[in-house]
Amino acid sequence: MKRLLTFCTAMLITSMAFAQQALWGGSKIISPEINDDNSVTFRLHAPKAVKVQVIGDFAGGEMVEKDGIWEFTTAPLAPELYSYSFVVDGLVVRDPSNVYMIRDVATVTNVFIIGGDRADLYKVQDVPHGSVSKVWYNSPTLGFDRRLTVYTPAGYEKNRKQKYPVLYLLHGAGGDEEAWMDLGRTSQILDNLIAQGKAEPMLVVMTNGNAGEKAAPGQCPDGFERIPGFQQRGMMEGSFEMHFPDVIKFVESNYRVYKDKKHRAIAGLSMGGYHSLHISKYYPDLFDYVGLFSAAARFHENSECPVYQDEKAQLDRQFAKGVKLYWIAIGREDFLYDENVKLRQYLDEKGHPYEYYENGEGHIWKNWRIYLSEFAPKLFK
Amino acid sequence: MKRLLTFCTAMLITSMAFAQQALWGGSKIISPEINDDNSVTFRLHAPKAVKVQVIGDFAGGEMVEKDGIWEFTTAPLAPELYSYSFVVDGLVVRDPSNVYMIRDVATVTNVFIIGGDRADLYKVQDVPHGSVSKVWYNSPTLGFDRRLTVYTPAGYEKNRKQKYPVLYLLHGAGGDEEAWMDLGRTSQILDNLIAQGKAEPMLVVMTNGNAGEKAAPGQCPDGFERIPGFQQRGMMEGSFEMHFPDVIKFVESNYRVYKDKKHRAIAGLSMGGYHSLHISKYYPDLFDYVGLFSAAARFHENSECPVYQDEKAQLDRQFAKGVKLYWIAIGREDFLYDENVKLRQYLDEKGHPYEYYENGEGHIWKNWRIYLSEFAPKLFK
Repeated sequence: MKRLLTFCTAMLITSMAFAQQALWGGSKIISPEINDDNSVTFRLHAPKAVKVQVIGDFAGGEMVEKDGIWEFTTAPLAPELYSYSFVVDGLVVRDPSNVYMIRDVATVTNVFIIGGDRADLYKVQDVPHGSVSKVWYNSPTLGFDRRLTVYTPAGYEKNRKQKYPVLYLLHGAGGDEEAWMDLGRTSQILDNLIAQGKAEPMLVVMTNGNAGEKAAPGQCPDGFERIPGFQQRGMMEGSFEMHFPDVIKFVESNYRVYKDKKHRAIAGLSMGGYHSLHISKYYPDLFDYVGLFSAAARFHENSECPVYQDEKAQLDRQFAKGVKLYWIAIGREDFLYDENVKLRQYLDEKGHPYEYYENGEGHIWKNWRIYLSEFAPKLFK
Repeated sequence: MKRLLTFCTAMLITSMAFAQQALWGGSKIISPEINDDNSVTFRLHAPKAVKVQVIGDFAGGEMVEKDGIWEFTTAPLAPELYSYSFVVDGLVVRDPSNVYMIRDVATVTNVFIIGGDRADLYKVQDVPHGSVSKVWYNSPTLGFDRRLTVYTPAGYEKNRKQKYPVLYLLHGAGGDEEAWMDLGRTSQILDNLIAQGKAEPMLVVMTNGNAGEKAAPGQCPDGFERIPGFQQRGMMEGSFEMHFPDVIKFVESNYRVYKDKKHRAIAGLSMGGYHSLHISKYYPDLFDYVGLFSAAARFHENSECPVYQDEKAQLDRQFAKGVKLYWIAIGREDFLYDENVKLRQYLDEKGHPYEYYENGEGHIWKNWRIYLSEFAPKLFK
């Protein structure tokens, strides 16, 4: 067969002119170009522009024009996934030479990755790949169908007798069931950690944490007319937390997974950390692993919603029943830092065991990718 | 439970300030705005611009500025999915107020949908939704793992004893395993046709038709550094066609599907139509339904690759063995129109039965969405 294929391949290197499709084309300019020293050169063809800048989560600056092409080269950059845009005479625009973009709430930016160190986990590597599915589940508690994302590890289709543990991974305010995949690089991080033998093969289930909505922008009946933004209802008032057993029931009746506490983990960033805190204490028999990433680690004292009643007693009960790992991570510049200090003080006071990971910077995806890649290897071992 | 949730929802409509996340924000301007008469108003804040235009697959034009905001309103538009961009002083930019974009090869444009008529099939409606999975399969023929997209219809997870038929749906040159989902609106079309009782519940399997590559841009080890474009090898030289049983084997051993000719269909656009033609004739026992959408309907005469040897004899043998539906569709302005005339002449000459669908315009996604929505209801009945 290999020989036949060689014949076939050698025969017909056709160069067909499919020029009629109006939308094809794109730019001939290379941008961004990652140089050997990990500096990055950006280019933009804009002969009529007066002033062009690069902005991003690195030191950008003013571009310089020559023959209508504007150019800027950064200093060498550390390994990381970076976002950027151009500003052309005050107008923020995407880089027309770079098709890779990620949406964060209502903003779309271009992205690139400087490899090396931890950032290699964020790249698609030549390792076995898991599957990623967008699936709809029914929530009797909320009364409608909702969308979620499921990562199943490489080998899931083949190893018909193997059961897997599950990490439930929750997004922050303004996110949705796509955020952890796109911005969080979840499938790449898990593919790579599993291939390196650092994390156990596991499913990762990413829900939509806005209980008032069915699915991510563009995936609801309001379609492309919806402007992404922060939801007004259903975010942090208890209904998402209360409905969570509907998610678990769906996952455990549709996937080959273990169905006990020691094979379930829950973690989330910001609002998702808040959800993880409250879900895991309100349902203390469900999760042996809890991860709070830059969490909104707050209590309410006597809300009428049962999720928030006698909250500290709930937390005490959770620890009395046992948690294998309660993992708290936050950046020193995070605006939620103090809430996390208070939570840790309470846990210390009561002698509830937890692990703590503190690093630099604040409430940004860079940190959440780091936290996921630190947390996942600790699970199900 | 409902009552508790109402309590919860009423309690805490928090307005948290997660302002630290650098990338949030977006524009306050509404663009595009679909007016009651289906005209569309575009807006862009660009106070320093001298000339701004709207271009798209509708009659665009020059925008008019007032207080730094440029505006243009189209004539009422017919129901359809439309793409557009802005041109600001010669620079083609995306609409910063619209996060909905679709990539076509190396070009990304904004999109919106004018509902009504057939275009309602392209919208996410309030109907049961199928699942969409990105899955990696092994190809022993090609010698590596490759990525494909699988649509499973609503109810697939629940109806554990039901088996389903499969439509293999192939993209054109420059596309990949994501094209039919993004530009083709496959999951929306199938969800809606199935909900209306017009199409049978079926799986749709969308492969990557470039046999030399593993996955779509951004999903390969070359990651975000790959510039999408036409592949140099592995497109139309026989190897994709030859490897196709690897795809079928993967699908039929991993999904609850029927495994016989009468429950398999294959269709594709442009290069994918070419692949459908050649795969179905080279493997005449596999497919009872064949769809050629704006197909590169060409023969080679005596290539050394077995897929292309004695091609017309292969075609005769396919029809002698029986094909329930051989469906050819093309637009009158398509640059491949003449190739399709020749194919039909040959089929007429030999008395091979086929159905023919001709409409206006040419080699564009608008037509391929129409062809899918015409073809799918004819299958497996």
